[in-house]
Amino acid sequence: MAQVHAQENFRAVAWRDGAVVLMDQTRLPHEEIWLTLRTPDEVAHAIRTMQVRGAPAIGVAGAAGVALAAHEWDAGDTRMLIMHIAMRAEELRATRPTAVNLSWAIDRMMRVARATAFAGPAALRAALLAEVQAIADEDRAQSERMATYGAPLMPAGGILTHCNTGALVTAGGDGTALAVIRAAWRLGTNLHVYVDETRPRLQGARLTMWDLKRWGIPSTLIVDGAAASLMRRELIQAVIVGADRIAANGDTANKIGTYSAALAARAHGIPFYVAAPHSTFDLSMSDGDAIPIEERAAAEVTEIGGVCIAPEGITVANPAFDVTPAEFITAIITDAGILRSPYKEAIRIVADREVTMVHAAAN
Amino acid sequence: MAQVHAQENFRAVAWRDGAVVLMDQTRLPHEEIWLTLRTPDEVAHAIRTMQVRGAPAIGVAGAAGVALAAHEWDAGDTRMLIMHIAMRAEELRATRPTAVNLSWAIDRMMRVARATAFAGPAALRAALLAEVQAIADEDRAQSERMATYGAPLMPAGGILTHCNTGALVTAGGDGTALAVIRAAWRLGTNLHVYVDETRPRLQGARLTMWDLKRWGIPSTLIVDGAAASLMRRELIQAVIVGADRIAANGDTANKIGTYSAALAARAHGIPFYVAAPHSTFDLSMSDGDAIPIEERAAAEVTEIGGVCIAPEGITVANPAFDVTPAEFITAIITDAGILRSPYKEAIRIVADREVTMVHAAAN
Repeated sequence: MAQVHAQENFRAVAWRDGAVVLMDQTRLPHEEIWLTLRTPDEVAHAIRTMQVRGAPAIGVAGAAGVALAAHEWDAGDTRMLIMHIAMRAEELRATRPTAVNLSWAIDRMMRVARATAFAGPAALRAALLAEVQAIADEDRAQSERMATYGAPLMPAGGILTHCNTGALVTAGGDGTALAVIRAAWRLGTNLHVYVDETRPRLQGARLTMWDLKRWGIPSTLIVDGAAASLMRRELIQAVIVGADRIAANGDTANKIGTYSAALAARAHGIPFYVAAPHSTFDLSMSDGDAIPIEERAAAEVTEIGGVCIAPEGITVANPAFDVTPAEFITAIITDAGILRSPYKEAIRIVADREVTMVHAAAN
Repeated sequence: MAQVHAQENFRAVAWRDGAVVLMDQTRLPHEEIWLTLRTPDEVAHAIRTMQVRGAPAIGVAGAAGVALAAHEWDAGDTRMLIMHIAMRAEELRATRPTAVNLSWAIDRMMRVARATAFAGPAALRAALLAEVQAIADEDRAQSERMATYGAPLMPAGGILTHCNTGALVTAGGDGTALAVIRAAWRLGTNLHVYVDETRPRLQGARLTMWDLKRWGIPSTLIVDGAAASLMRRELIQAVIVGADRIAANGDTANKIGTYSAALAARAHGIPFYVAAPHSTFDLSMSDGDAIPIEERAAAEVTEIGGVCIAPEGITVANPAFDVTPAEFITAIITDAGILRSPYKEAIRIVADREVTMVHAAAN
């Protein structure tokens, strides 16, 4: 998994010389700093502080953290090694609760660990490394398939997006929702991207505008509260966002503010698309009400760039995600194809495909 | 018009010793700085840079600017003096285009100037000063009437508000929408205010949280994008906002993001209230499409507290206001009573009352 920082080979998360190499997303857009992480603790810290973020990317980073766990333990006893890896895996899993891709990737790594245990520590380490590589390679391929499937859905005109779903959120490829936009742009669709700044962490302003500027796609930054009025002024013809977890019925958890955009889209008869790889589906949850919503620190709202913008001692609610009910979603663009309402059957088929793939990988 | 900075006698805009004294709203919540403005230019600068903001408050400030114009011209020729005042009045009017209260107050001052011209410069200056006093006194009385009329409409539970409509936006009194909330709180309504931070200028975070903290009213700050999901979680039972201009049919221009909150309120069956004095109505506009929407500098979005949060050289759209169609508004709380749909007839009656008052004042 070569890590080259170039326009077409950009890899937000990569493995090099026994370490995870990732771009520090908290420093963008002004500084492009690559971090080299050598322990599961360092990976956990990077996920927790959002140095790496975006559902698929934290899946890859989490998987790499599990692989690193196999290297920080020298003992030859495979059973002890697996116990150590499992403990580290649970620490990594707990870093962020909402995006299911993290849990999905960690489960996948642990299946490989248990399946390879009989062969001894060296083989186990090699198998885990191969699995990280496989997850990253699939991540890239999935990004490309979503882009191919989704591009024809993008109309000419204004496309609203929320948060960041570009090159930073997949290990290779152009991301999820933003990959669809880029593919449509490459097909010649005369589009203009309106980017919600996405408070509180400003992923739209900091990261999506950075992606679109690099890619040369026409774009305009707006505050989140302006999106609905732009729809009323007929400046927006479609909305496309990513997802952190999709329940069995299609209810979708994504960055806070997504539901607001979905309500506005419906009120104006504008299609609302979600783009997500199959690892984002969670069949264990029948609907979105069961999805755990991460509550993050008040300081994310009250401080911007170290500047305090609110009185001291106030109460803040800072849910990092919201849930958009399936009925608001025109289609879900996945690496297995376009899903449309009613979602339940289509999602079960995509998830079955995932089970089949896991079985094939385990065999 | 005594200016005393105390809990119950707070006057955000006041006249003292031949100058306008106002609290610099750009320095809040961390610094409570009073500015003394002695020329129309200084007043225009304060309005343009939002040192003073809030529709009624910029009306009072604009009126005071007109009175100051009468003092910066020493010539004894009344005709020349009026021409000078008129020129300054147009400069003041142009500082901010959306809030009609500014234009309304300036028109009112110019009517007094022309009606008093025959009496000579000294009498004219005295009449203008008296008119500023009258506008400020009415402003306070209107705030109190809105609070009285509106308070019974506030339910127990969560009340969402957007931008800032408190003590800073009226010359005395507790403001517009926030005055209604405070009056309901004083009546014993068990309410909790959810405050949209209100990007880009963060009036909710900086100013509304400051008001509510001073007043001891339970409150929680949220990002604008979180409001809809709090409604879905049944944490919000009503929405109340102010207004910058209300067209003859009830369409309401207010701070960007208001329309988004109105859409979400309707989708969840939550009442959506607007509180505004009668000076906010503009019968010259049949509906909201004609209301001019101020576009402000890109830097308001890309820089926060001097920190740049987006890539350089990007395009930004920064409309300062949006228009909420009348059909989304459950009731308009005015100093003349509660208006309900269909608004056209009720608004005409309130506006007639205004005409009657103007005539009475001119006589």
